[in-house]
Amino acid sequence: MGVIYRIDMTGLQVKSEEAAGDYAELGGRGLTSAVVAGEVPPDCHPLGADNKLVIAPGLLTGTGAPCSARLSAGAKSPLTGTIKESNAGGTAALNLARLGIKALIIEGQPEAGKTYRLVVSADGVKIEEAVALAGLGNYAVADALRGEFGEKVTVMSIGQAGEMRAGAASIAVTDMEGRPTRHCGRGGLGAVMGSKGLKAIVIDPAGGSAVKPADADAFKGGARKFIESLRGHPVTGTGLPTFGTNVLANIVNEAGAYPTRNFSEGQFEGVDAVSGETQHDVILERGGQIAHSCSPGCAIKCSRIYPDKDGNYLTKGPEYETVWAHGPNCAIDDLDAIAVMDRMDDDLGLDTIEMGATVAVAMEAGIIEFGDAQGAIGLLKEVEQGTPLGHLVAAGAEVLGKAYGVVRIPTVKGQAMPAYDPRAAQGIGVTYATSTMGADHTAGYAITANILGVGGNVDPLKPEGQVELSRGLQIATAAIDSLGLCLFVAFAVLDDENAGAAICEITGGLLGSPFSGDDFSALGRRVLLIEREFNKAAGFTDADDRLPAYFKTEKLPPHQVTFAVTDEDLSDVFNFTE
Amino acid sequence: MGVIYRIDMTGLQVKSEEAAGDYAELGGRGLTSAVVAGEVPPDCHPLGADNKLVIAPGLLTGTGAPCSARLSAGAKSPLTGTIKESNAGGTAALNLARLGIKALIIEGQPEAGKTYRLVVSADGVKIEEAVALAGLGNYAVADALRGEFGEKVTVMSIGQAGEMRAGAASIAVTDMEGRPTRHCGRGGLGAVMGSKGLKAIVIDPAGGSAVKPADADAFKGGARKFIESLRGHPVTGTGLPTFGTNVLANIVNEAGAYPTRNFSEGQFEGVDAVSGETQHDVILERGGQIAHSCSPGCAIKCSRIYPDKDGNYLTKGPEYETVWAHGPNCAIDDLDAIAVMDRMDDDLGLDTIEMGATVAVAMEAGIIEFGDAQGAIGLLKEVEQGTPLGHLVAAGAEVLGKAYGVVRIPTVKGQAMPAYDPRAAQGIGVTYATSTMGADHTAGYAITANILGVGGNVDPLKPEGQVELSRGLQIATAAIDSLGLCLFVAFAVLDDENAGAAICEITGGLLGSPFSGDDFSALGRRVLLIEREFNKAAGFTDADDRLPAYFKTEKLPPHQVTFAVTDEDLSDVFNFTE
Repeated sequence: MGVIYRIDMTGLQVKSEEAAGDYAELGGRGLTSAVVAGEVPPDCHPLGADNKLVIAPGLLTGTGAPCSARLSAGAKSPLTGTIKESNAGGTAALNLARLGIKALIIEGQPEAGKTYRLVVSADGVKIEEAVALAGLGNYAVADALRGEFGEKVTVMSIGQAGEMRAGAASIAVTDMEGRPTRHCGRGGLGAVMGSKGLKAIVIDPAGGSAVKPADADAFKGGARKFIESLRGHPVTGTGLPTFGTNVLANIVNEAGAYPTRNFSEGQFEGVDAVSGETQHDVILERGGQIAHSCSPGCAIKCSRIYPDKDGNYLTKGPEYETVWAHGPNCAIDDLDAIAVMDRMDDDLGLDTIEMGATVAVAMEAGIIEFGDAQGAIGLLKEVEQGTPLGHLVAAGAEVLGKAYGVVRIPTVKGQAMPAYDPRAAQGIGVTYATSTMGADHTAGYAITANILGVGGNVDPLKPEGQVELSRGLQIATAAIDSLGLCLFVAFAVLDDENAGAAICEITGGLLGSPFSGDDFSALGRRVLLIEREFNKAAGFTDADDRLPAYFKTEKLPPHQVTFAVTDEDLSDVFNFTE
Repeated sequence: MGVIYRIDMTGLQVKSEEAAGDYAELGGRGLTSAVVAGEVPPDCHPLGADNKLVIAPGLLTGTGAPCSARLSAGAKSPLTGTIKESNAGGTAALNLARLGIKALIIEGQPEAGKTYRLVVSADGVKIEEAVALAGLGNYAVADALRGEFGEKVTVMSIGQAGEMRAGAASIAVTDMEGRPTRHCGRGGLGAVMGSKGLKAIVIDPAGGSAVKPADADAFKGGARKFIESLRGHPVTGTGLPTFGTNVLANIVNEAGAYPTRNFSEGQFEGVDAVSGETQHDVILERGGQIAHSCSPGCAIKCSRIYPDKDGNYLTKGPEYETVWAHGPNCAIDDLDAIAVMDRMDDDLGLDTIEMGATVAVAMEAGIIEFGDAQGAIGLLKEVEQGTPLGHLVAAGAEVLGKAYGVVRIPTVKGQAMPAYDPRAAQGIGVTYATSTMGADHTAGYAITANILGVGGNVDPLKPEGQVELSRGLQIATAAIDSLGLCLFVAFAVLDDENAGAAICEITGGLLGSPFSGDDFSALGRRVLLIEREFNKAAGFTDADDRLPAYFKTEKLPPHQVTFAVTDEDLSDVFNFTE
């Protein structure tokens, strides 16, 4: 049930097919990964005609299940060379699902220099030339297309970085207010979209309707239980809505795992100025908004709207990862400068994590000084101007670091590590090293048991128990990403058995057949093994599942700890079958 | 017999040890690879303190054997991440050997920003600060040090590129005239030297003496036979001295394997203007020199001295690979512009092959136009100025290509392919794919049987026989590189059994015990397996031994051929034991 549109950018033709087999069964990350693994030659160049960009709502998206409006985008990544799924909030997933669309599969490559847009509606998908959009930032693209098609449409688009086919280029998705603030950020999927000559996708929801569960009663019962659980958990019910994701700043800093000055220290002396608590006060003082939803049907509301000093809208959030990346990781403690960079990243279409990491490496290279907020903003302006330095910055930390002979480049498989130092949170180190996606905290968020005391406790400074922790989380995450659920529901799931049971009831209700906890795990394992198999065929082996050597030798203050999980243990993470 | 100096750049101390065991047995590439494989952590960062730069003359160097003055430099490569040996002519190897030195092993890392030089003499090795040399090009460094230490010293040095720790940075070695024209070019070893704070190595030959063969009569008999064979072979006796290495331009172009416009065509319409024949005439008209030796004891004399239009010295050669890289690969047919770039590369300390390939990728990226010689020169000036674009250029084709989202990047393991398209010379394609060094023609020069009819004939356009051809050549080459012989002796060896026998007699004479053809092959296999083992421990697998996918799908004119050697066959190349 559900239509797959194949958009051939070589022949500029669109075909549709009823989803069948695996493609019918799967959704979200499961579906994007199945299509990439099944149809993309593993050795192809990620920016060539043989790669495919797959966009899919989750399996539960459109049903009305709480927190189920995540959109997955997948392809072979130009940043990592691995399979990649990157997901975002916003309104795209819901609107696609309500149009009965399982996936858009964008294939081939048009003549160089051409710019196109897709218009997706109840009538199907149209490819149209879009010369006027070329060179625009995401805000201008969203404004132009919402002006043309109306305020209810979703706009997915790439900024200048995607047009540059940059390794850190994201795909923007408009949020509940129609702003391009939600991003499939990681892995350079915006560059894949750019390589296909595609600047924007308009999704017109008119004529769509809710996805109907096969067993409405079971579904509704599960949904009620799920909301209760989410509201009752201190993280999803209180911490995230009040202080946003940046509630983590003080917590992770306290734990000594807050990467500072390009991962050379684990605590930042200026954390107070950039913490979630400070951000909360600044936002409220200026008339911004806390407890804001990034996508329809959100029951957590961790997003916020951040105004400038004059009270005018500046950007969303910014999220914990962004504040960290553009802030403490660069020794910057200026929340407004960070917010400006968040806005620039969103507009240029850049992954904020990769950008912050890249600016820090540029600081390590001596291009600008640590702490130089205006210099950091200047580096993003270079991207906008398309200068050689801008190309280097937009290419990500590893490429910039290589060009400047930097030794300390905190990447795995070419992707920058996010906001947790793997030495002081060794479980997340296991995830960085072994994830099918390169360094990615969302692939198996071990900060839960390592630092937050959610789902148990595993000493973050020791290697024991980290492999089991990361493996379990990676499996669960692959399932959550496939269902289209926001990853934050995991906080409740890990502590409250009702939450996991509720997800199973919801899914069983949708399918009209029982869906057990074992089925949930089996789904996660299945998706991970599909991804792992693709990576293997692309040339990746256990030897690639390692952190840069310096994490094993350089001690991280204040705990003076190195990453101690052995190579043998890392090679054991994927030691499971479907 | 022979001393190894360990130069500790962390503690700024020098220790010496008598070479023992493997280190005593091996020389040249065999020795550098044994030290790197035995002492460098495979997962270390190539520019970190754990990497070691090893410099060693060949086993036969200093004995008076013809063509035996090659110098090997080895380390973990910042360009490829593999083990790397890069060898050069010039006077360094002979002078080291005559001082009884088996190897210099440069270890550790000094405080950032410091600049040192080594002074190697009969009294040992001294580390000295060398602030005045910082930022200079190789020509100025050689001038300064020869002014200070006398005209008989050898100077090894890095230019600005090595100080930038650039992926394409070479180590220059002064030639017979004291000019820095001979380079350990490939793999960024100049960056490793730069990462150790080392700008130059002065080698004062005073007090040195010839290496004495154990069996002088056997040695002399072999040497006589060897010279006869080299003089009698049409390539080493006539072609190379008369027209230099660039004699290949017309031949390879005729074969349709002359990569043109960034490997998009196999023939260049302007080849006549840049051929070895034209170069020969230009050099003689201007009062330059052909049949010039790049190192002492050369019996081939393929080098030349290239004057500018006013008859003043401009540069050596340029060699076939350089003419191709900066010429036809960039659609440039201006021999003088190419010579200017050769001079700039030598002065900045850059691998000419990597530079030409990088300029071509910059052209493909649209930074400058194909055929724009002044634009190409301008890109090298950016390196000199240390601009972001200069860093990108000096980082090599893959990094620049990634920063600009280029799909057609002709590299293997991060190193640019040299002057033979692997589709129209599939044997060299096997070498590019499987060499322990990344894309490197000298690792197994299958052009012999593919195009030159030397050592038999293997149809260059078909996959059959290429694996056996490349494997045999890779083994022989590893032995030749370990003995310190110029690779060009292989032309004679492949066609004349007396040449191979002569090498064995020479080696047996040196050692004072019989050295058979089997011993020669065993040496080559041993060295290759040492290298392969290091690469495996560094994370490389068979899956890395592949050409970029587009060589398997894009047809190369004029033969309209794709690379057809199967992955299975490529994985079979290293299917041998010691």
